[in-house]
Amino acid sequence: MSEALRWIAADWGTSRLRIWGMGAGRGADAALFARASDQGMARLAPGDYPAALTALLGDQAPGPGALLPVVVCGMAGAAGGWAEAGYGALPWDAGQGAGSGFVRPDAGGDRFAPVILPGLAQTDPPDVMRGEETQIAGFIAANPGFTGTLILPGTHSKWVTLDRGLVRGFRSFMTGEVFAALTGATILRLTMPSDAPPDDASDETFLGAVAAALDDPHLPLSDLFSLRAGALLGHDPAPQGRARLSGWLIGAEIAAARRAFDLGSPIALIGAGDLGARYRSALALAEIKAPLFDGEALVLDGLCAAYRNIFDGDPA
Amino acid sequence: MSEALRWIAADWGTSRLRIWGMGAGRGADAALFARASDQGMARLAPGDYPAALTALLGDQAPGPGALLPVVVCGMAGAAGGWAEAGYGALPWDAGQGAGSGFVRPDAGGDRFAPVILPGLAQTDPPDVMRGEETQIAGFIAANPGFTGTLILPGTHSKWVTLDRGLVRGFRSFMTGEVFAALTGATILRLTMPSDAPPDDASDETFLGAVAAALDDPHLPLSDLFSLRAGALLGHDPAPQGRARLSGWLIGAEIAAARRAFDLGSPIALIGAGDLGARYRSALALAEIKAPLFDGEALVLDGLCAAYRNIFDGDPA
Repeated sequence: MSEALRWIAADWGTSRLRIWGMGAGRGADAALFARASDQGMARLAPGDYPAALTALLGDQAPGPGALLPVVVCGMAGAAGGWAEAGYGALPWDAGQGAGSGFVRPDAGGDRFAPVILPGLAQTDPPDVMRGEETQIAGFIAANPGFTGTLILPGTHSKWVTLDRGLVRGFRSFMTGEVFAALTGATILRLTMPSDAPPDDASDETFLGAVAAALDDPHLPLSDLFSLRAGALLGHDPAPQGRARLSGWLIGAEIAAARRAFDLGSPIALIGAGDLGARYRSALALAEIKAPLFDGEALVLDGLCAAYRNIFDGDPA
Repeated sequence: MSEALRWIAADWGTSRLRIWGMGAGRGADAALFARASDQGMARLAPGDYPAALTALLGDQAPGPGALLPVVVCGMAGAAGGWAEAGYGALPWDAGQGAGSGFVRPDAGGDRFAPVILPGLAQTDPPDVMRGEETQIAGFIAANPGFTGTLILPGTHSKWVTLDRGLVRGFRSFMTGEVFAALTGATILRLTMPSDAPPDDASDETFLGAVAAALDDPHLPLSDLFSLRAGALLGHDPAPQGRARLSGWLIGAEIAAARRAFDLGSPIALIGAGDLGARYRSALALAEIKAPLFDGEALVLDGLCAAYRNIFDGDPA
């Protein structure tokens, strides 16, 4: 790599660390390389962070005294992370606000000059995000002044209301984590093992379950045991059980969210891979058109926006 | 104990074994003693059952060759239990049907002559019970010809339709297990630890949550994350969080069930302790009057009914 490494962009989540080495230029096109590891916040003490970065950088790691800037979003900024970065308040300017309120960890080491970005908090009803605000900033960098709804599926899905580039409100749904808990920590684990691959009928079963949950909000909680009993009585092979439960829970999320959000204005879905595709088809069933944007690319765009805002105004 | 031990009544669940030593007489009043242990089906291989019984009986255990009758209901009759006892079909006569379809395990040992009672299965929609059918038989022994609905709260709550003593249909709700999975295997565990005792406001919070879930079926899934965010932002101390989640889930169960069951005819609640009391107050909020019967007493009544049906007709 001949071009000089200027700074590091880091999306530091609970279970995963993803970094980009950034060269000259202020945007995502300046990325020289991208790497990922399982050194998430959940397994690190505050003093472990510089070493985890150094290890992942390998032969790209800066030497002692280099103080290479690192812009970090995600759970590394939660209590118990690298440094607690708190939460920004609403309304939040997803353009100019990117990077505001950052903190510098005490345990930065002498190779890095890290800044940790805060999350966002909503007072009433109480809600928080940490990491998604940087994806939103990335989206706004390319769509300044956007008014509408962003949908970010995941462990804790977020639905976010934007008004001319300002985050006005949002709501989290524990859809992904509820699916994991039900399939991992209840009797349902016996009939829908995680290693059961989807089969040809799974897509149809998923969409049928989305439609059923859109139609009947009681169903996703009230019919859970039928997934177990259906398998016991030989009705429902494992892949269909998983597809059905996933459809029920995603359908329930959409059913609740469409009452709470103004879906007459533009909507965008920020996700990736199979989950993004499933949300897109589930939203289509609810007659919600939402183009899909790549969440991983947007987090880097948002980190670049934060870097520009922080280091243009007051270079470290 | 001077009176002779004639047979053993056993409620053998997943995690718990409860037995009664039975003397002369054919009803629950013949119980000479009651004992319980944690030797549930989940930790026993088929060959372990006689020794678990012998250990719990202690100085009351029969000698080799005694072949003491043991009537067993519950998960000991599931696949992987003492012996698989299958399921009875609907409609099921909860009076004359008690004890029908029992199986004798190969691994009975020479001290016991065990009979294992089957569960009940419903084909459409698929549902099963195992153990509750014996509580229902106990209820019917005291209320022959009952027409109405029985509600049996628990890990997998059951709502059961009876027509002149016949079980016509039933539905299971995973309410208790969903509560355990959400508070034990999601981020909610951090803000509502199981050792947080209820406080003065918990009852009011519980009933408020029941009312909210009765009013809005979307709420119990859609608002889960507010329990975490509310605690992060300092709104909701742990006991209220647990009470709120419990109220939401029990409210959702009642909201779904009251659409599916004819609640114009008599209703009885079969439960015990704090859970029975909470269901009773939650049902009252939904204007469902349900006298509370003690589930532990009814299981013994049901085992006695099975014993009478099995050994009067065709003594072992």
